[in-house]
Amino acid sequence: MAHEVADLPSGPLDIYRTRASFNWKDMLLFLDGEEVLAFKNHIFQTLQNDPLFARQPGEDIPVEKMRELTFLRVKQLFKYDFLTQDEVMANPWKTVALNDCLGMYDWACSAKFFLNKGMFGATVANSGSGRHGKFVKDTEDMTTFGCFALTELSHGSNTRAMRTTATYDPSTQEFVINSPDFEAAKFWVGNLGKTATHAVLFAQLYTPDQVCHGLHSFVVPVRDPKTLLALPGILVGDMGKKLGQNGVDNGFALFNNVRIPRENLLNKTGDVSPEGLYITPFKDPNKRFGASLGALSGGRVSISRMALVNLKLALVVAIRFSATRRQFGPKDTEEIPVLEYQLQQWRLIPYLAAAYALEHFTKSIFMNFVEFQIGMLMKDKSDRQAEMGREIHALGCSGKPLGSWTAQKGIQECREACGGHGYLAMNRLGDLRNDNDPNCTYEGDNNVLLQQTSNYLLSLLHAKHHDGVPIESPLHTVDFLDDFNNILESRFTATTMDECLDSAVPLAAYKWLVCFLLKESQRRLEEQRATGKNDFEARNNSQVYFCRSLAIAYIEHNCLQRFHELTTDEDTPAGLRPVLNKLCALYGLWSLSNHMATLYQGNYLSGGKPAELVQMAILTLCSQLKDDAVALVDALAPTDFILNSPIGNADGQLYKNLWSTVMQGNQVLERASWWEKFCSDKPVVGSLRPKL
Amino acid sequence: MAHEVADLPSGPLDIYRTRASFNWKDMLLFLDGEEVLAFKNHIFQTLQNDPLFARQPGEDIPVEKMRELTFLRVKQLFKYDFLTQDEVMANPWKTVALNDCLGMYDWACSAKFFLNKGMFGATVANSGSGRHGKFVKDTEDMTTFGCFALTELSHGSNTRAMRTTATYDPSTQEFVINSPDFEAAKFWVGNLGKTATHAVLFAQLYTPDQVCHGLHSFVVPVRDPKTLLALPGILVGDMGKKLGQNGVDNGFALFNNVRIPRENLLNKTGDVSPEGLYITPFKDPNKRFGASLGALSGGRVSISRMALVNLKLALVVAIRFSATRRQFGPKDTEEIPVLEYQLQQWRLIPYLAAAYALEHFTKSIFMNFVEFQIGMLMKDKSDRQAEMGREIHALGCSGKPLGSWTAQKGIQECREACGGHGYLAMNRLGDLRNDNDPNCTYEGDNNVLLQQTSNYLLSLLHAKHHDGVPIESPLHTVDFLDDFNNILESRFTATTMDECLDSAVPLAAYKWLVCFLLKESQRRLEEQRATGKNDFEARNNSQVYFCRSLAIAYIEHNCLQRFHELTTDEDTPAGLRPVLNKLCALYGLWSLSNHMATLYQGNYLSGGKPAELVQMAILTLCSQLKDDAVALVDALAPTDFILNSPIGNADGQLYKNLWSTVMQGNQVLERASWWEKFCSDKPVVGSLRPKL
Repeated sequence: MAHEVADLPSGPLDIYRTRASFNWKDMLLFLDGEEVLAFKNHIFQTLQNDPLFARQPGEDIPVEKMRELTFLRVKQLFKYDFLTQDEVMANPWKTVALNDCLGMYDWACSAKFFLNKGMFGATVANSGSGRHGKFVKDTEDMTTFGCFALTELSHGSNTRAMRTTATYDPSTQEFVINSPDFEAAKFWVGNLGKTATHAVLFAQLYTPDQVCHGLHSFVVPVRDPKTLLALPGILVGDMGKKLGQNGVDNGFALFNNVRIPRENLLNKTGDVSPEGLYITPFKDPNKRFGASLGALSGGRVSISRMALVNLKLALVVAIRFSATRRQFGPKDTEEIPVLEYQLQQWRLIPYLAAAYALEHFTKSIFMNFVEFQIGMLMKDKSDRQAEMGREIHALGCSGKPLGSWTAQKGIQECREACGGHGYLAMNRLGDLRNDNDPNCTYEGDNNVLLQQTSNYLLSLLHAKHHDGVPIESPLHTVDFLDDFNNILESRFTATTMDECLDSAVPLAAYKWLVCFLLKESQRRLEEQRATGKNDFEARNNSQVYFCRSLAIAYIEHNCLQRFHELTTDEDTPAGLRPVLNKLCALYGLWSLSNHMATLYQGNYLSGGKPAELVQMAILTLCSQLKDDAVALVDALAPTDFILNSPIGNADGQLYKNLWSTVMQGNQVLERASWWEKFCSDKPVVGSLRPKL
Repeated sequence: MAHEVADLPSGPLDIYRTRASFNWKDMLLFLDGEEVLAFKNHIFQTLQNDPLFARQPGEDIPVEKMRELTFLRVKQLFKYDFLTQDEVMANPWKTVALNDCLGMYDWACSAKFFLNKGMFGATVANSGSGRHGKFVKDTEDMTTFGCFALTELSHGSNTRAMRTTATYDPSTQEFVINSPDFEAAKFWVGNLGKTATHAVLFAQLYTPDQVCHGLHSFVVPVRDPKTLLALPGILVGDMGKKLGQNGVDNGFALFNNVRIPRENLLNKTGDVSPEGLYITPFKDPNKRFGASLGALSGGRVSISRMALVNLKLALVVAIRFSATRRQFGPKDTEEIPVLEYQLQQWRLIPYLAAAYALEHFTKSIFMNFVEFQIGMLMKDKSDRQAEMGREIHALGCSGKPLGSWTAQKGIQECREACGGHGYLAMNRLGDLRNDNDPNCTYEGDNNVLLQQTSNYLLSLLHAKHHDGVPIESPLHTVDFLDDFNNILESRFTATTMDECLDSAVPLAAYKWLVCFLLKESQRRLEEQRATGKNDFEARNNSQVYFCRSLAIAYIEHNCLQRFHELTTDEDTPAGLRPVLNKLCALYGLWSLSNHMATLYQGNYLSGGKPAELVQMAILTLCSQLKDDAVALVDALAPTDFILNSPIGNADGQLYKNLWSTVMQGNQVLERASWWEKFCSDKPVVGSLRPKL
């Protein structure tokens, strides 16, 4: 199969490509597999061949036009129907591959498509019942278009505090939706700005007896599908320009006595009888709340993947640029590629290692999530299924921060590493940064989410201490913690740099680190409680340096652990294992180097030697990997059309591509339309200066 | 005077304002002084009252329109003539204040104005001679408009490698300017895209004997001032959209046998006689080169200030937001401002401390620079003047990275700390990030510049070791290094958290750190040379963890040192000293916490206690400062019109301001113009799917 992958065009990048220690086509196949590779190529070629998807690098499109273009492209996606429901069932990973491809093209396009199908359609399907089938069906051919309305102007993280109400009126068998005031306007709702006809709306459910049964979701028509005009009682509009993803029309809505049929309540977790009695299969309202928000877990898993895709694109651009940009050299007459500089290697190659680590991480977490979902579909009521839910939640709540922050920092580094040319819009690094940005804050602010993960870990420790329950979990991400006391006795033992080139070294250090931070977080919480703080205060005061660091260390450990297993797996092709080993060791050491102070603080390290060994190992691995770096990004790169960055094209003709794209700009050589305002009516200097 | 400062509007921020430990008006006066305060207010009010400067938050303006608007605004600045040459002489700081004010409004406006006056005008004045007076004069009333053309498509950092040529033709007494190929096109030149009529152009000077005399600067007319059409032989155009600062028309130019009079050579450092003989007052071409690029030093000093201004604006927005945004609370019924959370404090307040530290740093460095410039004007040929030049260069080359990176990271944190609302364009955090971004890479990439600083420090150490020259400098930023050996014997001695609340603690640690990194860098370089590496390789291989860290530690130490002196100065108002002390200690400890591993590595710290003391001191200071945070940003904030961020308005009416700005958006409630494309011609699902 490898021979079926097209060769990359020959050019200045050949120098590095010929030096690579592995065959990039083998890597490509290893990462994607034949089927997904063909699927991705089909999508890439389809978009490239469709004039509706044509683009001009660096184009300057008004927000209103971006909204329209993105809408039309999404409409076209229905016609292409890249992935049928049957195909998803046969290979769920293809959903991710489709999102990857659309996102590489433009995240707004992907978001707009999946907000309707995934966020609206899937939520209705999962949270509703048979009576809601038509809502789902109508979205499938764009008869209607959906959105997901949870966040309000004054509430985001604190979802329980949403203030929109849905009051049941038995006389008409309707719910009456109201926004108490503009601060409770639904806000930030993707697709609601211009296009949504229906919303999954979260509101506090009131029965006629004035009892509030908590947050529930309802299908609420917001616009007439025949006219796209707002329905009576609904003030709905577009929030305007965002930092990025401007193809998505995020919107707001205020509801004034809007009536919807009783049946529009998504009734999986609670229903209201025609007479107005509240019925729920859950006794504990907290459990019901958790279940109704459970649909969000998949979102976080997918966000870490989306962030990774941005990081990969930025790395393709920055590494190809660095391999072709020459500046300075040992002699005045000859300049060397900037990738030859230790500093440039150290800035970029660890992020490349992180991208490979996250590639496997996001893939294997997704597979875990699929396993969990199958259990849900099978109505598995076992303890294991429940435990897996908690574990997936902990993984998602820390995996999203890991992915989105790594991408955020990595893209910024790539942008700076390309110097001025990285600041030109046509090279796309700005769009990647802007489009990645919301990954850090939506579906839960990263810092807030990390608390969910540390709470999970602390609860396991608590159960062990108080009830003697061994620490273990269905996906085994916490099992090592059961050996807590022994691990805390371990120390950094490497004495040579060569020993540190093995990912087992940072992996062992991470195990110690997670145990140490777990113990310290527990101690800190107890100290806070001992001084009379209530639970709310005690937790708040234990985040920085403790619980937050714990959650980060846990997920970095898990990411490293998974990558380590992959690189040492006999099924991993022998020709790729050496380079993957290096990437894994580099990722581990580099991530670990953010925690050196803690390692010293807890006496895992002592003296000057260990830090120096780690540093020298990082530099050595960067240097060893620099000749593989181009081939490593070749295996991650989409086609040039999709990448859309002249300085990152596969042919490596940095300046030719950049220059010709500049020259294709709009009115590039033309005199400004306002030239007369320069040439006539010259300013009289000081004419507007106040006279004293 | 304090009573003349207008009160801020009462509202939700009052809670924090009344808790502040100091009077914000006193702080404002302390920071700016009466004269500059009045000057700034005059500029703010003038811009606000001029409809040409009107704006709509979140507006979506095409690049071409931004170019025009910015041009018209710059033209208006000539009429306002805010600052005459005499006024600059009387108080040079006012130039910075003017740049601050224009930049707070819009950096593109400021850049376009100063590129003509400062970069073109001042360079011609400083590098030319009497015969160039008319070029300067013509820019002063916009008869012509200038730009500064150094960078080429394929060369930025390596300025010496520029390839544009200027060959003298004695037969016509002209220079003939040529771009050998498109890779040598001048590129990234601000103002050149649409408006410049003249360029200061850097080219390799060739005399008729084919001898190259290195890079020189020339005044080259590029467009006809009467028509703004390109002159013959010049292909000049606009580079297109950038990540930010789109009001500035960055451009490129290619030259094909363009002839300019001999006199257009800026001849301060070298001239050509009518017959074609090269004449220079410098014997060493390296010195000539250094002098001709010397004009760039002021740029770096000013960039660190510009970055700081961005950071200040972002902090005003994020801290006012955090003081009014409520989310969660100890009880379900009552939510608390997010500024009350330890995590939010820790994310933002250290950057506030950094802003205060950098406020004093950029001001005092500027004063140093003024002193140096006066020496230049006085033609001071003393060793002290030359030494000061080297020291200022070292300070500028590390001060720019310090300022621009602190701002970059701080703005990102502010953006994330405002959650989704930080992602809305109207709140300006995106623009601040985008406009700040080039500060990291222009006038020298930060990482490349840092090498200049470490080279300076290493050369001082070398002179001491080899020639017994004591380490000292005119501005005394390196004097402590002379006590190198003693300082390396020192250790962290604090044993309680309270002791660490004093900035003397991090200051002492920084002194040790700089000495340690200097020694280690020296050792690393020697090791590299000992293995046979040439100087180029040895230096390249000593950057990461050594020379780069050294330069960063040096400038952080100097910034802290200056702030420490200010806070302990008896002239600093007693009412402000307590809060300034806290800010200084926090800045020092927080910056230092990035170097903990090195402090352990070199045995300055040992055991778990010191790191814990530092961490607890940081959290304590954040908590102590949170009630002062609003007043601290009030003293940094411009007017609401200038700040241009609804969530950061002085009245603290977060939601009212945000909501009303959203509602004022363009076509916010209107149906999309393309609504019919939704309602008719529905997609046939799968109609474009390939049939198998």
